[in-house]
Amino acid sequence: MKLLHQQNFMANPYLRRSMTRAFSSIRWEGGVSMVQGASRGIGLEFAKQLLEKNEKGHVIATCRDPSGATGLLQLKDRFSERLDIQRLDLTDERTIEESALSISERYGSLNLLINASGVLSIPNVMQPETTLTKVQRSSMMLAYEINAVGPILVIKHMWPLLKAGGGSGTERDVAVVASLSARVGSIGDNRLGGWHSYRASKTALNQLTKNIAVEFGRKKDPITCLLLHPGTVDTDLSKPFQSNVAKDKLFTKEFSVLKLLSIINNAKIHDNGKFIAWDGKEIPW
Amino acid sequence: MKLLHQQNFMANPYLRRSMTRAFSSIRWEGGVSMVQGASRGIGLEFAKQLLEKNEKGHVIATCRDPSGATGLLQLKDRFSERLDIQRLDLTDERTIEESALSISERYGSLNLLINASGVLSIPNVMQPETTLTKVQRSSMMLAYEINAVGPILVIKHMWPLLKAGGGSGTERDVAVVASLSARVGSIGDNRLGGWHSYRASKTALNQLTKNIAVEFGRKKDPITCLLLHPGTVDTDLSKPFQSNVAKDKLFTKEFSVLKLLSIINNAKIHDNGKFIAWDGKEIPW
Repeated sequence: MKLLHQQNFMANPYLRRSMTRAFSSIRWEGGVSMVQGASRGIGLEFAKQLLEKNEKGHVIATCRDPSGATGLLQLKDRFSERLDIQRLDLTDERTIEESALSISERYGSLNLLINASGVLSIPNVMQPETTLTKVQRSSMMLAYEINAVGPILVIKHMWPLLKAGGGSGTERDVAVVASLSARVGSIGDNRLGGWHSYRASKTALNQLTKNIAVEFGRKKDPITCLLLHPGTVDTDLSKPFQSNVAKDKLFTKEFSVLKLLSIINNAKIHDNGKFIAWDGKEIPW
Repeated sequence: MKLLHQQNFMANPYLRRSMTRAFSSIRWEGGVSMVQGASRGIGLEFAKQLLEKNEKGHVIATCRDPSGATGLLQLKDRFSERLDIQRLDLTDERTIEESALSISERYGSLNLLINASGVLSIPNVMQPETTLTKVQRSSMMLAYEINAVGPILVIKHMWPLLKAGGGSGTERDVAVVASLSARVGSIGDNRLGGWHSYRASKTALNQLTKNIAVEFGRKKDPITCLLLHPGTVDTDLSKPFQSNVAKDKLFTKEFSVLKLLSIINNAKIHDNGKFIAWDGKEIPW
């Protein structure tokens, strides 16, 4: 349902404004979903299942470098009309604003926002710390910027677009913002220590999401914010650290995302601000 | 008990090493305490009470700019032998290392480390956010660097020096690391929202401290890490935000620090990793 070419649309302010108004009133069948951090891993799988498991509905998949996102480009070949690939770099807020503007102009609303990006290690740059003596300012700051600040800035800019609707087959009566957290972000459940940068960034994401949930709740916005723990999933993120994981505890992307999408599709307004694992159980802060 | 001039001491590596060994075995009566962030507010009050309420014991008080720390300089006039003022800038890890080296050489051990620094607002730079739309990357990163990363780097460098001992009158059987957290850092207790940068940074500090407590506990180091909520205290930090605070809920520095020092002096090894308010009650994560 590509009514106008994006380029022309952006270039003419009058057309842009009037079409945005017109589009805002369109109810997109199957809803409009955004997956931030969709080039690989769990994010790519979210985009894939949102497209494959629904006959209708549009997906905006964002990543830092669309030209190198081979998984997304393959998906685009199969779902050219329903998949929009956009460049979004969490460390550059302008790209987040541009993405929001583009979604506003093209769709007018957003029913589901999934923050799937995340960093745990980067060869020669940052490694999960095994002890306090290995904690470095640079890794701490980088993990915080990518895992905590970035997703919050995305929610900040997408907030005006969030509207109830969409869902797999059923129409959800809330818009859903689902951010990937991790059980290691739990303070109450922290028995092993280590992974300081990653843990602290996910704990901060939990607090920030709770904070936003309180604000949405007070304004009676029909938005539910979820923090999701996907389990330990066989992705590039976990690959260097899988040796200590029992085989039956290492999930496929397909399994984990299936579980998480079920949680998202069944989300109610009273779930706003919850920290939930793949199996539906709440995790202590 | 200034046995050697610091300057000569630092200049001669042989003398330095041999004296460090000699000093390590000295048991400093009344203990050696460090207050990081001692130029004003709660930190200055900690330094003051540690000196005033004990007849013996040494205090290392650190701040970014000793020459401008009038409160500390006044204290130095009264306690010239027992108070060491050192420059330490949380954003410059070398100054933390230098402080650790200097404490190692002069005292050989540290019985109490208090992280009292913290930032909530800076005119024209950062303000506590009243809504998600006001969240800025720069404020988020700054609050995290000062409130979460800085104290952790201080613990990292002071760790080898931490030994049981000191305390007011009694000899504690654990070394204590006490970091000032805040109730607004609690996720479970977050009912008001807002103050995103500050909240997230204190929540992250909680997780990082818990992480360190787990590591210390596993190594059976006789160190107890505490996270302390001082209440709302009449300081420069809270001044711009006191209008909403009931008069009987706004504590003096004297009262709050008296309460917190009592918690510190009574800390046991099983308190390691706890988040405790001024009244001794635990705060949920």
